[in-house]
Amino acid sequence: MAQKVPSAIKGFKDKYPAEKAQQDWLFHKLTEVIKSFGYSSYDGPLIEPIDLYLNKSSEELVREQTFGLVDRDGRKLVLRPEMTPTLARMVAARAMELVIPLRWFNIGLRYRYEAPQKGRSREFYQIDCDLIGPDSRIADAEIISIAALLLRALGVTPQEAVVYVNSRSSMKDFFKANGISDDLQKPILTIIDRMEKQPVEISHKAILDLGVDRQVVDKILNIDPNDAPIPPDIGECLSYCKSYGVADYIEYNPRIVRGLDYYTGIVFEVKARHGLTRSLYGGGRYNNLITSYGANRDLPGVGFATSDVILLAFLQDLGKLPDFKGTSTIILAPLFENEDPAYVFGWCQDLRKEGMAVETYPEQAPLSKQLTYAQKAGIPFVLIAGEKGTQRW
Amino acid sequence: MAQKVPSAIKGFKDKYPAEKAQQDWLFHKLTEVIKSFGYSSYDGPLIEPIDLYLNKSSEELVREQTFGLVDRDGRKLVLRPEMTPTLARMVAARAMELVIPLRWFNIGLRYRYEAPQKGRSREFYQIDCDLIGPDSRIADAEIISIAALLLRALGVTPQEAVVYVNSRSSMKDFFKANGISDDLQKPILTIIDRMEKQPVEISHKAILDLGVDRQVVDKILNIDPNDAPIPPDIGECLSYCKSYGVADYIEYNPRIVRGLDYYTGIVFEVKARHGLTRSLYGGGRYNNLITSYGANRDLPGVGFATSDVILLAFLQDLGKLPDFKGTSTIILAPLFENEDPAYVFGWCQDLRKEGMAVETYPEQAPLSKQLTYAQKAGIPFVLIAGEKGTQRW
Repeated sequence: MAQKVPSAIKGFKDKYPAEKAQQDWLFHKLTEVIKSFGYSSYDGPLIEPIDLYLNKSSEELVREQTFGLVDRDGRKLVLRPEMTPTLARMVAARAMELVIPLRWFNIGLRYRYEAPQKGRSREFYQIDCDLIGPDSRIADAEIISIAALLLRALGVTPQEAVVYVNSRSSMKDFFKANGISDDLQKPILTIIDRMEKQPVEISHKAILDLGVDRQVVDKILNIDPNDAPIPPDIGECLSYCKSYGVADYIEYNPRIVRGLDYYTGIVFEVKARHGLTRSLYGGGRYNNLITSYGANRDLPGVGFATSDVILLAFLQDLGKLPDFKGTSTIILAPLFENEDPAYVFGWCQDLRKEGMAVETYPEQAPLSKQLTYAQKAGIPFVLIAGEKGTQRW
Repeated sequence: MAQKVPSAIKGFKDKYPAEKAQQDWLFHKLTEVIKSFGYSSYDGPLIEPIDLYLNKSSEELVREQTFGLVDRDGRKLVLRPEMTPTLARMVAARAMELVIPLRWFNIGLRYRYEAPQKGRSREFYQIDCDLIGPDSRIADAEIISIAALLLRALGVTPQEAVVYVNSRSSMKDFFKANGISDDLQKPILTIIDRMEKQPVEISHKAILDLGVDRQVVDKILNIDPNDAPIPPDIGECLSYCKSYGVADYIEYNPRIVRGLDYYTGIVFEVKARHGLTRSLYGGGRYNNLITSYGANRDLPGVGFATSDVILLAFLQDLGKLPDFKGTSTIILAPLFENEDPAYVFGWCQDLRKEGMAVETYPEQAPLSKQLTYAQKAGIPFVLIAGEKGTQRW
């Protein structure tokens, strides 16, 4: 009889109403800001051919972290680990008919086969927000400012989280000026990306091993985020961010390079000032991606993604995650044991038409039982009404 | 260069903003009604162990229509084809702590490997709505009335769709009264479920072949939906539906039996009066399901599910699906070519704080280009403002 019931698999979670209400609250806060900038919601399939990601996303993501399926014709499919390739495919497919600029956002599930830990699960939502059309610092600043405004909308202060901005194009200029060949740039960026996770000697040796002069290696590794001169593209971008009133959330940081291959211009990461070391969001400019998906038109883009799991964990740490009971019912209408309940259903329906969330107790039961339910469920009002002339007490 | 870009796989769709806006509109209409009855949103994993469905859902669904995965330990998983088993698992796991009655709903993705056709795709959303706790006709009537109120909220009239209700317990009584043994009931129900899809002779022969008396077979197959006496449980239920003001949507129909094995009491299906032959929704009472998932407490339930794909196709047929441009922006703020745009960003942000969706053009471009964009994108207002004392024309 008491058979073993399969529970949710590792890295996946059952989401009961109190927790779902927190996620709904988060999505509501985020979409309110994003929609105020005129972004439209879009979506794509959760299952995609693996080819969509090859040579686009980071190799680690595609080769090691995807949930794979094989369809009945033997084709390799994956549960989407990120949204940008789907977005690029969709935009490329209709490049000539879509009204450019595009401001699009998606809130949807993503899957990554990683070790579950705080702020990370194998199933999570990402909120992607992209501005496609112009290659302008104005567009970069809008995306970065939205990232910062989302923090503010969630009640997070500049003392609690920061948007670190860097420019891959400025780094390219820096490499060029120091005689580093094009083919070394990608491995060096990867080493810089890992700098914070390992002792500086290891990063030093790794770059040296690539054949870079010791003097140049010192130069690369000694970039002091608090001291480096701000590259002009970032400077322009930051000046616009001031107008959005979010300058205090944003800092130039030459050590932020982002792991994904498709970024070409500004890149940024939002990080907690204390506690969580994983990024809260990541984003940047990708000027060649949509063309690489076959668009017969030049369509540069800039965007970011953040996840529900990391944001909820972060807000929880800060004590800024509201506590919901999971019910938004405001009125319970009890039913009486020896009375036709039909009358109650009628006036409850009238209250619902006025926009109120009203429950009737779903069976005829002693009043005390019904009142206990209202109290335990956190329903604030109990409304008792009878037909004219009836009397109950 | 022009490499082949992998498009969405068969039965899956890219959802551009205009189409996504229709889905969002649908979900908003449905949740408005469901929340007015005090239902709370919950969710569960999209990937579940196949064991969760075995001997619970219909065998056809699990064996033939699931998208399967194998995890890295060799465990068989599926993308969830329906929500009820996840719901039952979640409720069973916390049966003693949850405040009963539960009113829960979920809007989430489901996957079925079926031949794509109008109103059916391999990836779709279902809206599930369940009332768990009492085994009462009051609860049955609430669920059936919500199903009907959703139709009304979508602008569908009783002349366009109908909620057919039947009672599996009444059928059981009928079988018993006619000397049909318990083990024959399931196969007979399956035959009745398929009656509308095949000539009556085939159904007749199929029941006869089970060893049922010809006289009884005639009785079973001659049940005229317009003539059969209404069983008392359905009668009580219908009288409550009247109080909800939805009686005109609801009809007793003894030929509705539903394919899923777990139903024990009332069952119902919403069908289009004309056109689409597939059900728009299906539901019923499942009194033993949650206990079968290990709940150490008796928790009868009643609920239904409907899908976005079928409802959108149905509304489209009726001409009742609104057309959205995909943008909800109401103001475009142009930027001028020789002027610092920062000022514009500031006042746009002020308007956003007032709840308006405002776009700035994301680069400095000729005004004519920006106005053409506003027109093509369907943005109703263009707001041009300069700093005090500046003059542009």
